[in-house]
Amino acid sequence: MSTAAMRAAARAAARRALDEDLAGYGDLTGAAFEGGGAGRVVAREAGVLSGRLAFEEAAALVDPGLGVRFERDDGDRLAAGETVAVVAGRLASILALERTGLNFLGRLSGVATMTARFVAEAEGTGARIAATRKTTPGLRALEKAAVVHGGGLAHRFGLFDAAMVKDNHAAAAGGVGAAVERVRAHLGHVHGLEVEVDDLGQLEEALAAGAGVVLLDNMDAATIRAAVELVAGRAVVEVSGGVTLERVRELAATGADVLSAGALTTRAPWLDVALDLET
Amino acid sequence: MSTAAMRAAARAAARRALDEDLAGYGDLTGAAFEGGGAGRVVAREAGVLSGRLAFEEAAALVDPGLGVRFERDDGDRLAAGETVAVVAGRLASILALERTGLNFLGRLSGVATMTARFVAEAEGTGARIAATRKTTPGLRALEKAAVVHGGGLAHRFGLFDAAMVKDNHAAAAGGVGAAVERVRAHLGHVHGLEVEVDDLGQLEEALAAGAGVVLLDNMDAATIRAAVELVAGRAVVEVSGGVTLERVRELAATGADVLSAGALTTRAPWLDVALDLET
Amino acid sequence: MSTAAMRAAARAAARRALDEDLAGYGDLTGAAFEGGGAGRVVAREAGVLSGRLAFEEAAALVDPGLGVRFERDDGDRLAAGETVAVVAGRLASILALERTGLNFLGRLSGVATMTARFVAEAEGTGARIAATRKTTPGLRALEKAAVVHGGGLAHRFGLFDAAMVKDNHAAAAGGVGAAVERVRAHLGHVHGLEVEVDDLGQLEEALAAGAGVVLLDNMDAATIRAAVELVAGRAVVEVSGGVTLERVRELAATGADVLSAGALTTRAPWLDVALDLET
Amino acid sequence: MSTAAMRAAARAAARRALDEDLAGYGDLTGAAFEGGGAGRVVAREAGVLSGRLAFEEAAALVDPGLGVRFERDDGDRLAAGETVAVVAGRLASILALERTGLNFLGRLSGVATMTARFVAEAEGTGARIAATRKTTPGLRALEKAAVVHGGGLAHRFGLFDAAMVKDNHAAAAGGVGAAVERVRAHLGHVHGLEVEVDDLGQLEEALAAGAGVVLLDNMDAATIRAAVELVAGRAVVEVSGGVTLERVRELAATGADVLSAGALTTRAPWLDVALDLET
Amino acid sequence: MSTAAMRAAARAAARRALDEDLAGYGDLTGAAFEGGGAGRVVAREAGVLSGRLAFEEAAALVDPGLGVRFERDDGDRLAAGETVAVVAGRLASILALERTGLNFLGRLSGVATMTARFVAEAEGTGARIAATRKTTPGLRALEKAAVVHGGGLAHRFGLFDAAMVKDNHAAAAGGVGAAVERVRAHLGHVHGLEVEVDDLGQLEEALAAGAGVVLLDNMDAATIRAAVELVAGRAVVEVSGGVTLERVRELAATGADVLSAGALTTRAPWLDVALDLET
Amino acid sequence: MSTAAMRAAARAAARRALDEDLAGYGDLTGAAFEGGGAGRVVAREAGVLSGRLAFEEAAALVDPGLGVRFERDDGDRLAAGETVAVVAGRLASILALERTGLNFLGRLSGVATMTARFVAEAEGTGARIAATRKTTPGLRALEKAAVVHGGGLAHRFGLFDAAMVKDNHAAAAGGVGAAVERVRAHLGHVHGLEVEVDDLGQLEEALAAGAGVVLLDNMDAATIRAAVELVAGRAVVEVSGGVTLERVRELAATGADVLSAGALTTRAPWLDVALDLET
Repeated sequence: MSTAAMRAAARAAARRALDEDLAGYGDLTGAAFEGGGAGRVVAREAGVLSGRLAFEEAAALVDPGLGVRFERDDGDRLAAGETVAVVAGRLASILALERTGLNFLGRLSGVATMTARFVAEAEGTGARIAATRKTTPGLRALEKAAVVHGGGLAHRFGLFDAAMVKDNHAAAAGGVGAAVERVRAHLGHVHGLEVEVDDLGQLEEALAAGAGVVLLDNMDAATIRAAVELVAGRAVVEVSGGVTLERVRELAATGADVLSAGALTTRAPWLDVALDLET
Repeated sequence: MSTAAMRAAARAAARRALDEDLAGYGDLTGAAFEGGGAGRVVAREAGVLSGRLAFEEAAALVDPGLGVRFERDDGDRLAAGETVAVVAGRLASILALERTGLNFLGRLSGVATMTARFVAEAEGTGARIAATRKTTPGLRALEKAAVVHGGGLAHRFGLFDAAMVKDNHAAAAGGVGAAVERVRAHLGHVHGLEVEVDDLGQLEEALAAGAGVVLLDNMDAATIRAAVELVAGRAVVEVSGGVTLERVRELAATGADVLSAGALTTRAPWLDVALDLET
Repeated sequence: MSTAAMRAAARAAARRALDEDLAGYGDLTGAAFEGGGAGRVVAREAGVLSGRLAFEEAAALVDPGLGVRFERDDGDRLAAGETVAVVAGRLASILALERTGLNFLGRLSGVATMTARFVAEAEGTGARIAATRKTTPGLRALEKAAVVHGGGLAHRFGLFDAAMVKDNHAAAAGGVGAAVERVRAHLGHVHGLEVEVDDLGQLEEALAAGAGVVLLDNMDAATIRAAVELVAGRAVVEVSGGVTLERVRELAATGADVLSAGALTTRAPWLDVALDLET
Repeated sequence: MSTAAMRAAARAAARRALDEDLAGYGDLTGAAFEGGGAGRVVAREAGVLSGRLAFEEAAALVDPGLGVRFERDDGDRLAAGETVAVVAGRLASILALERTGLNFLGRLSGVATMTARFVAEAEGTGARIAATRKTTPGLRALEKAAVVHGGGLAHRFGLFDAAMVKDNHAAAAGGVGAAVERVRAHLGHVHGLEVEVDDLGQLEEALAAGAGVVLLDNMDAATIRAAVELVAGRAVVEVSGGVTLERVRELAATGADVLSAGALTTRAPWLDVALDLET
Repeated sequence: MSTAAMRAAARAAARRALDEDLAGYGDLTGAAFEGGGAGRVVAREAGVLSGRLAFEEAAALVDPGLGVRFERDDGDRLAAGETVAVVAGRLASILALERTGLNFLGRLSGVATMTARFVAEAEGTGARIAATRKTTPGLRALEKAAVVHGGGLAHRFGLFDAAMVKDNHAAAAGGVGAAVERVRAHLGHVHGLEVEVDDLGQLEEALAAGAGVVLLDNMDAATIRAAVELVAGRAVVEVSGGVTLERVRELAATGADVLSAGALTTRAPWLDVALDLET
Repeated sequence: MSTAAMRAAARAAARRALDEDLAGYGDLTGAAFEGGGAGRVVAREAGVLSGRLAFEEAAALVDPGLGVRFERDDGDRLAAGETVAVVAGRLASILALERTGLNFLGRLSGVATMTARFVAEAEGTGARIAATRKTTPGLRALEKAAVVHGGGLAHRFGLFDAAMVKDNHAAAAGGVGAAVERVRAHLGHVHGLEVEVDDLGQLEEALAAGAGVVLLDNMDAATIRAAVELVAGRAVVEVSGGVTLERVRELAATGADVLSAGALTTRAPWLDVALDLET
């Protein structure tokens, strides 16, 4: 992920989020408070940090005069009670930033923390944990980055940076091999192509069609093991469907290269992060 | 919530989400598939529906020729396996819509479903369940609507449509009463004002300052009951802080008017919703 | 009004205004003039200043190298001939800024000046002067701020930050009390609610419904006095309809708390402000 | 003025104005009212109509299902009490449109009406009344159109569609003739060029430089008459500076071709227009 | 290329182009012409058509009432004098559309026509002609589509939908193999990867690193032939650098799979297309 | 052309171009490369430079920390091999900027170079070379500036900054004179007006109608000479239609004031410009 693309995504997301909180007259309450102040962003529970860029961009948009100093970086493990960042400047600006900035840290650190739990389960197996496209609408770049901060792989960004032949493409084309052929005829010669298969028959068809990456969909561990054997290094093997925290260790031990899990983004509770004003 | 404001929010969110999935050449895979088709949006588990507007707007943006017919409406309870909507038109358009449309339904129905669980726990007590401003950045309007679809209250939208004096305002002003006074001096005579209190002393101060709504922060049930008695109908009583699914019944029984819970949005797993192409 | 919200509004308005004046090749005339220069923004007549933020943002957008130093601030009373600000930098940039910058100062100082005249009329009565939503489309934030600079109240920003039950709501619901009840059922518990009444009967109905703010619409001074007596401190009393400069003193003496006047924005001539280049 | 450009300007202005009134939850009050209704837009005082396009675009943005039928067109003279338009559809949509739609009609009809008064004063003299660039920031296209609806000329739109050599250009170049020469060297051969002069000496210089349009700045009627004689048809003669309603007849009788007046936009009170719901 | 993505790109480009031609008062000349009319878009010289979508979107933006009927489609070969499309509606709208619409057709058909010439030269060899990222800023989607209309391949869209290790990456990493390894460590497992090589030594290094697509940069035909032999089907072979119309036949005969040529977009004269009004 | 307008156009074009190259994860390849570097922008062939502003704005958008120092300015003649600019900073940022920055320089310097060739042909004749509105959609401001950098005239920007009566207007109005009259009735008194004529008869009609600029369309040199004689200094004479590089000298010698040529923008190959990383 390039820094320029990420910072632009963070800035756009921060602007939208601030617009949600500061329409009309802006902060009706905080506007009454003059003078300066300082606050600490503190993790109320242990987890993995993500969202620094969005927090920084939000601060700069609220008030370019705000000073923000992060003591921990994206991807760092946080202990409960640990200080993440210090904010100093106009009191009204800190109050206006508070909820928006914390919402980014809470949601994104939640995703990073959930990812880290999956990654810890797969440790030592050689299997990597990857995100899916089940991301909150409008936050894809930041949530994909959060998965990386948690130790996972971002996978493709959208429908446009790699092709994937799935069950419905196969159904429409009359078979996995026919679908791959049809997609190849349209696809640029440099675009990646992954092929989803439901069983070993389809897997053979996919390999015969020259698939470089295969996705084993909703298979049990035994079938996955058989599939890995059948592939024998000819393709990258990804496993998806039902990759829960409970099953990840078992699935990681099958020899698959990648486990992709919607749960990284769809089942991740927010990390509890707060801003304590110093008095 | 006005229809015009909601539809505009849904359209903007749909456009951003589609931009995330369809940059560059758009759908590299689906573009190879000509002809028409149809699909059913199906709930894979039970829950409460939310996200219809965003799904419809996304469909119209992908392809104005797509036909979308919702069989269930926002706020409806869904059984596992139930058909939510039917989509028909160009196959490539349905494929391009699929993930974006489902991401809205999955996230927002998740929030509605979690809200409905809180509401069910409070049933019969007279206490209402309300959202907070802990919403996913960029989705506030839709997530607040999802809380309403789940039977909850939306609460204030942002910092701009009602004032709330919180602990840090009190600290900065030197007391709850002083803070209320300072905010009142800036606030329009028609804007609502809520005052957060930590104990019964502050509560008396808030009532003396004429607070119409008081927020009891992080109190146990006994203290809340005492506070309700002390208020004696002079103000609306809201309870917040630690309002979990486990505690909601106990807190609802205290006589408080409103329980606001960040968990409606920060702890809600997505509802599992899928699109099955008809073959 | 929060600084962050106001500065964002000023920047957006400045950008739009400059786009109106500088499309195509930009300033066809000024582009021929190289070298630097300086100019003074001067009030040609007495009044109250407003528009500083928009002027500064416009200058920064035209040319970040322009130096702008305001000698007087928003809300200050200006004598005829007084220097408001000094601008220095590239001559072509000063010429490109001139009309756009002055249009902001002229219009907004006009509103501030008209407000100050109303406020002067009401002086000593305890009644405050407030704006309405009759603002120039696209300039609401800046015109509301101008009213504040003139010594007035901004009132609600739009339809979204406080509810107001008016005659047509009452008609649709079958009475003032019924309308209040219906609105309350939808309204968040923290949103402000004002009720407009046409006569003392409706006023009693509104008070019975618990209205915290009542708006007496188009009443004569005697009726207003009777209404104030009837309210007896139970609600904030606002008077609106026909609040002209001629009547404001009489109306302010009735004991009403707030007089809201469309004329602050709909009858305010621009303040005559010019930019004199130094030679 | 081309229809396409005007409609685009009206749509953009309508969107911005609605965003001002309908942020957050939108119309807090009107959302409680279901069902349909109808209303009449009525002129409360006599004047000239302007703003139809913006009203129509605002209605379409609030609710494409709203029916709007204008009974009078831009440029028509309205009697007090006359119906301008009829709006029918969802009651909540009519209420959400009301203030925004009326603000356009009030402001723009105010400009058209003021222009018509100037035009009436100049009637029979052959002099045309023209607008300046003293327009409300963000509304230039619509206010220029309002001047045309009132019978006036729109003049140049901005700094980009015609050049004008003014006093400060002359000062910077060391004389009117030198300034014209310098501007001509940069200006396209097809762009119009007007030259402002303060006295008859400068006028001769301007004519010698081949000016096709001359602007007589702040001259008394006798001097203008002498200038018109001196020009003798070699250039279009525009008069500006102090063109008030009181002086326009006298100035129009001098033989000048065009009188441009900032007052058309800076001194125009809004026309009083209201929306009466039918019950 | 998906239809939805292309239509969105065409609409955005059309809006920007119209803004360039219709600022301020819009069409100063055409606004004087009332009534209806019709015109034919005619190819003044032979070529391949491209730009239909952008023309249609521009027409809809100028005036939704304009009727546009294309008689030939993108990718069709046009004879000199042939009618491409018929436009009917308001005369002023046709005049406002004319130049903008033709600019799209002229530029994009120019690219399609140049591509078709390259493709014709390579006919029978099995080599495909591909575009590069040397596209006019702001028109990439439309120019890539024009290459496809001319019979070519679009190649990757930007830096984001496939990776390419080039000479400077190799230099920075200390060798082609090292660079591939470093990029692979960051790259998603589904993203395509192409490796540029300058000589046969680098080619062996790239193949050893498992490159699926190799780009032979600036090699003569003999070296390319040797490279194709060395690759022996293990990778897709692309040739780039100096792929001119004069050399394309020779290069295509080497056995390379793809020839990518900047000249498709950087050396393509516009196709001469005009709009003839019917009288 | 004003600096402010040009810089704003360059920034907008740069942002759009970067969005085309850096969607999704941004630069998939370059993101793997840490550390700093430097590169030289070098002209691979001789020509005239244009595009500096857009290159600088693109660099600032990619990474505000990039240092860009232009050694040659827009309008300068470049020898083959000459260094145009030096870029230094993060290696990943330089790589992300490379293609976008070069595309601006290549296209715009191509236009400037072609213009300079036309200008050189006309040298000594007194005839100026001018652009038309045949510009690449979205790049008009920058391409018009490139023509000026090449020594040409920019002509009108669009339909809005000067009127031009062409053959179809004449046809619709029933003659050139009638068309001019009709346009004058709508046109502001300060807007420029050019009249296109096909033969000497129409030319007389145009002069009689007071045209200040006449455009001789598609005439041979002898007829142009006769026209120039007939005009006898009463109007600026522009020649257009078939102004190719081959004919420009002959046409320039006719005594016409301006030759406008679509070929400046429609037949200009890109200048070959590259970025060489320093190693």
